[in-house]
Amino acid sequence: MNKAVVLLSGGLDSSTTLYYALKKGLNCQCLIFDYGQRHKKEILQAKALARRAGCKSVTVKIALPWKGSALLDKKLEVPQKRRLNAKDIPVTYVPGRNIIFLSFAASFAEAIGARTIFIGANAVDYSGYPDCRPEFIRAYQSMLSRGLKTSVEGKKIKIETPLIHLSKAQIVKLALKLKVPLELTWSCYMGEACPCGVCDSCRLRAQGFSQCNVKDPAFL
Amino acid sequence: MNKAVVLLSGGLDSSTTLYYALKKGLNCQCLIFDYGQRHKKEILQAKALARRAGCKSVTVKIALPWKGSALLDKKLEVPQKRRLNAKDIPVTYVPGRNIIFLSFAASFAEAIGARTIFIGANAVDYSGYPDCRPEFIRAYQSMLSRGLKTSVEGKKIKIETPLIHLSKAQIVKLALKLKVPLELTWSCYMGEACPCGVCDSCRLRAQGFSQCNVKDPAFL
Repeated sequence: MNKAVVLLSGGLDSSTTLYYALKKGLNCQCLIFDYGQRHKKEILQAKALARRAGCKSVTVKIALPWKGSALLDKKLEVPQKRRLNAKDIPVTYVPGRNIIFLSFAASFAEAIGARTIFIGANAVDYSGYPDCRPEFIRAYQSMLSRGLKTSVEGKKIKIETPLIHLSKAQIVKLALKLKVPLELTWSCYMGEACPCGVCDSCRLRAQGFSQCNVKDPAFL
Repeated sequence: MNKAVVLLSGGLDSSTTLYYALKKGLNCQCLIFDYGQRHKKEILQAKALARRAGCKSVTVKIALPWKGSALLDKKLEVPQKRRLNAKDIPVTYVPGRNIIFLSFAASFAEAIGARTIFIGANAVDYSGYPDCRPEFIRAYQSMLSRGLKTSVEGKKIKIETPLIHLSKAQIVKLALKLKVPLELTWSCYMGEACPCGVCDSCRLRAQGFSQCNVKDPAFL
């Protein structure tokens, strides 16, 4: 069975991406990052999701000794009720996060002989992070095709972004169709008992569920 | 003073690159990786080199839970007296190493407001690693220009590779000219008291010194 590496954060998008890859019949190995984010809840949920899906998972611990993001630094406040799809990049942006995550995914994929990397990047209902846009993914793909032994040998490790052009509502629909255990997913930037409901991530998620007329099982 | 991030492994090439960047009058911050390499000696030497140069250094600890390289896995043997500049990629290749290192450098550079990343990649007298070639660096640059907040804001973080087209002898000459404390540099893949003299890295280094008719101070 063909192997694939799936970047799994435990949120709606990456979990849907995992189930999408599984539906394709791939042997998915989940890559989870403990990168000093504000809370460990999403890591626990990502592990639970991988287990539920019957997939192996590997957790990579990264210490970023520099801060500069509200997701890394508890002294910075996570914006509440920020205008969604605003053009500015919010303080929750982590410098180079997907650049780093994909670099580990590429190394992992090459080490285990996987031919595909799945990432739930989305450039429609998103916070404007530059490393979620199609042009970034294309450039990353082109770089990988030059920097890996696999590519020099004429094979290719392909980055797949099945959600990149979907709205949040379309992602919710796809998740329901793929029977993603949505009650296990965690999107909130905060790590409280319940999702905060006011951070970008909560509000984009709520917007998706509301447009589908579906109750979010994370709140049930 | 303009800030720059310098990837420093403690070897001849990265140390020469550091002194090259210092000569340009840049405020260099060294980025050192503890990535589970066979020995810690190069990390100690890198730290000593940064101190000697009067530069701040940050050490990032990365656990790569996958192996597949003789530099990560002590069960694999480091090739001895391998034909230099052979076309095959040796077992010391670490999947995606420079892709990962540069991704942290980009994140660090953006977080501290540095505009340049220096890496001592070399594609002349080298072991054939794909992530040391100019075409890889160009593709990486192009990817960075799309994936960082800095680039979206119209600024640019530039990757500089001053050694990429130099032979090992030319690098030794440059190191001597820049007064790099060569006795502190460590190139050997093994971590014994003295360099082994038979691994690729030792032999490429020895070739460089010999072509310059200079004794390697690491052996004095």
